Amino acid sequence: MATPSSQPVFRATTTAPVNIAVIKYWGKRDTTLNLPTNSSLSVTLSQKSLRTLTTASCSPSYPTEDTLNLNGRPQEIQSSKRTLACISSLRTLRKSLEDADSSLPKLSSYPLRIVSENNFPTAAGLASSAAGFAALVRAVADLYQLPQSPRELSRIARQGSGSACRSLMGGYVAWRTGELADGTDSLAEEVAPASHWPEMRAIVLVVSAEKKDVSSTEGMQTTVATSELFAQRVSSVVPERMTAIEEAIRDKDFPKFAEITMRDSNTFHATCLDSWPPIFYMNDVSRAAVRLVHDINNAVGRTVAAYTYDAGPNSVIYYEEKDTELVAGTIKSILGATAGGWDGPFYEPLANVTSSVSLEKTDPRVLDVLKNGISRVILTGVGEGPISVEDHLVTETGEMVNQ
Amino acid sequence: MATPSSQPVFRATTTAPVNIAVIKYWGKRDTTLNLPTNSSLSVTLSQKSLRTLTTASCSPSYPTEDTLNLNGRPQEIQSSKRTLACISSLRTLRKSLEDADSSLPKLSSYPLRIVSENNFPTAAGLASSAAGFAALVRAVADLYQLPQSPRELSRIARQGSGSACRSLMGGYVAWRTGELADGTDSLAEEVAPASHWPEMRAIVLVVSAEKKDVSSTEGMQTTVATSELFAQRVSSVVPERMTAIEEAIRDKDFPKFAEITMRDSNTFHATCLDSWPPIFYMNDVSRAAVRLVHDINNAVGRTVAAYTYDAGPNSVIYYEEKDTELVAGTIKSILGATAGGWDGPFYEPLANVTSSVSLEKTDPRVLDVLKNGISRVILTGVGEGPISVEDHLVTETGEMVNQ
Repeated sequence: MATPSSQPVFRATTTAPVNIAVIKYWGKRDTTLNLPTNSSLSVTLSQKSLRTLTTASCSPSYPTEDTLNLNGRPQEIQSSKRTLACISSLRTLRKSLEDADSSLPKLSSYPLRIVSENNFPTAAGLASSAAGFAALVRAVADLYQLPQSPRELSRIARQGSGSACRSLMGGYVAWRTGELADGTDSLAEEVAPASHWPEMRAIVLVVSAEKKDVSSTEGMQTTVATSELFAQRVSSVVPERMTAIEEAIRDKDFPKFAEITMRDSNTFHATCLDSWPPIFYMNDVSRAAVRLVHDINNAVGRTVAAYTYDAGPNSVIYYEEKDTELVAGTIKSILGATAGGWDGPFYEPLANVTSSVSLEKTDPRVLDVLKNGISRVILTGVGEGPISVEDHLVTETGEMVNQ
Repeated sequence: MATPSSQPVFRATTTAPVNIAVIKYWGKRDTTLNLPTNSSLSVTLSQKSLRTLTTASCSPSYPTEDTLNLNGRPQEIQSSKRTLACISSLRTLRKSLEDADSSLPKLSSYPLRIVSENNFPTAAGLASSAAGFAALVRAVADLYQLPQSPRELSRIARQGSGSACRSLMGGYVAWRTGELADGTDSLAEEVAPASHWPEMRAIVLVVSAEKKDVSSTEGMQTTVATSELFAQRVSSVVPERMTAIEEAIRDKDFPKFAEITMRDSNTFHATCLDSWPPIFYMNDVSRAAVRLVHDINNAVGRTVAAYTYDAGPNSVIYYEEKDTELVAGTIKSILGATAGGWDGPFYEPLANVTSSVSLEKTDPRVLDVLKNGISRVILTGVGEGPISVEDHLVTETGEMVNQ
């Protein structure tokens, strides 16, 4: 680890996954601490498809200030209260280790150099902040050799981006709203590992670029402050759904999982529409994908697919591996060559798909809207939490690796 | 009234208006009696723009069965329970008059010949059933010379189509949900006559034909049965809004009227989206019109326009006459020659409009979507209830007038 100048550079590198909620996080009861109004639950998506790779390094040889480089661009770290909050919490934990054991190197006193890159285009409209903050927290925690569990680290990641706390674990992850005002009990926890129900697949339908209506940070607080239906969602609808979907995951009951997922997406967007002024994230392409999923389920005669929408028009459609042809195959037959992304590690079962669900009853306009409106698909599935790797983005001598 | 065969033909003709709710009717607590889950409130629109014209006639010379002709087409009256319910109630009232006064002709024993026509295209997607049932009830009541008030007749019209009860009066009309199981207290009443606030204007933006998602009759019961947010709307949101909007009407407080109108439209569509399966009536064109209205209000610096959406994509935008240029003028400047309907009795103040609100801050895509998506406008305003006229659609000898 020694540099030519004999000043050590310490490094740790991790990947972190994207997660897509099936019970949505929407609304904060504390905007500084990122404490949510309701619990949420997500599926961690495989890093074979989508991942953030982050190296955290520190060295007494670095210039005084902490730095963060994201996708090749230096970030204004000092103006990001959220990033500072995460780093500060991690540094405090390191400091207490050093105080207890004087043999430890004084990493907490060295400037940090953090370098991060996503393997998916920002244009995909996938919430990259969750993977980003999870990777940042995991990488720095690894660098500092912190003993805290992912659950404990989720408290820190939450301060970066609420949903980031769910990207510190794989599989099926709940973020409990907690009750304490200081947020110490607002933590993520694994409901089931990916290995419990590894057959879960997801296809992301990326809608051709459209400017977002309002940011989710702003939008959710508008909903909290103005929607007259929102309190009902928080006090009654979500708690019941959390219990039910955890049962569905435990029992690997896809139809139950699917209905709750779709209904919660709809309720979330309903509270957006009920906000003042109203917030719209779904567009006509999103609506067409909703129709398609219902039509596929009706045509098959059982629930094989479930849509969900975050704060944007892209659809994420969950299905089980055994139904790949019925779901992804049907989508492939509709989109044909009009959408990119029919490749990657989850493509193999689709390579030779020739038949699909009959869509006789589907309004041809729905198919046209999808064909014209979806630019790209991403094939993926449930996956693991952050993984330590050796693909450092900072060299042994502390230089950023050319990307 | 004597026919060549010396058999008398009795006739009465009325026009009836369309009404557009500002507090929406959505959900029945009794589907047979058409009893609503919540009170609603509407503005009756001027019959100078939109009206149904209906002649009710009866004669001992007519063949045995009652007949109904709508827009030149005979209707299957016997299979329409709702039409039969209205006619039966009216006939019963006539019968009791005849029983009390034997000098009256026995009209209740004669077959009815009812002929009706709308002056607006069905393609306009305007709920024609409200005007249609109101005209039918009013015309038959006039034919039978019934002493019942519009309020009392609203109980009958309600059984034809819920919202029809509100078209029996002009101006600002509330339909009280009532509490009795037999529906006798579920009646419409005039909150204020058109003359109280005659400056109210409305422009209908007719969205290029799109198949309706589901009928309102089916859709509202899906919402009642499945939306977990719906109970909140019924028990709390609507009652508060009814009180507030009646105050706004009393005070002619347009900004207050406007906000409640827009919010209630949004809440109604939110409960549709929260239904299972979800119901969508608004599309990207509707959303663009929502944006436009908010942008106009922001650009002007006060609330001059209010959108509302029924169970379809068309916008109805309310404004006050003094703001015609700011609202309708701006819309005219956007749509230019791409939409028909820039004519009629309410067009005059717009004929020479050359300026409009600056839409610098409006996303150009919003303007494109409106330009490409709106096929027609209808200019109108608040108006009167049904009017007795002599333009009979049935001749003195009982023949249908060629239309």
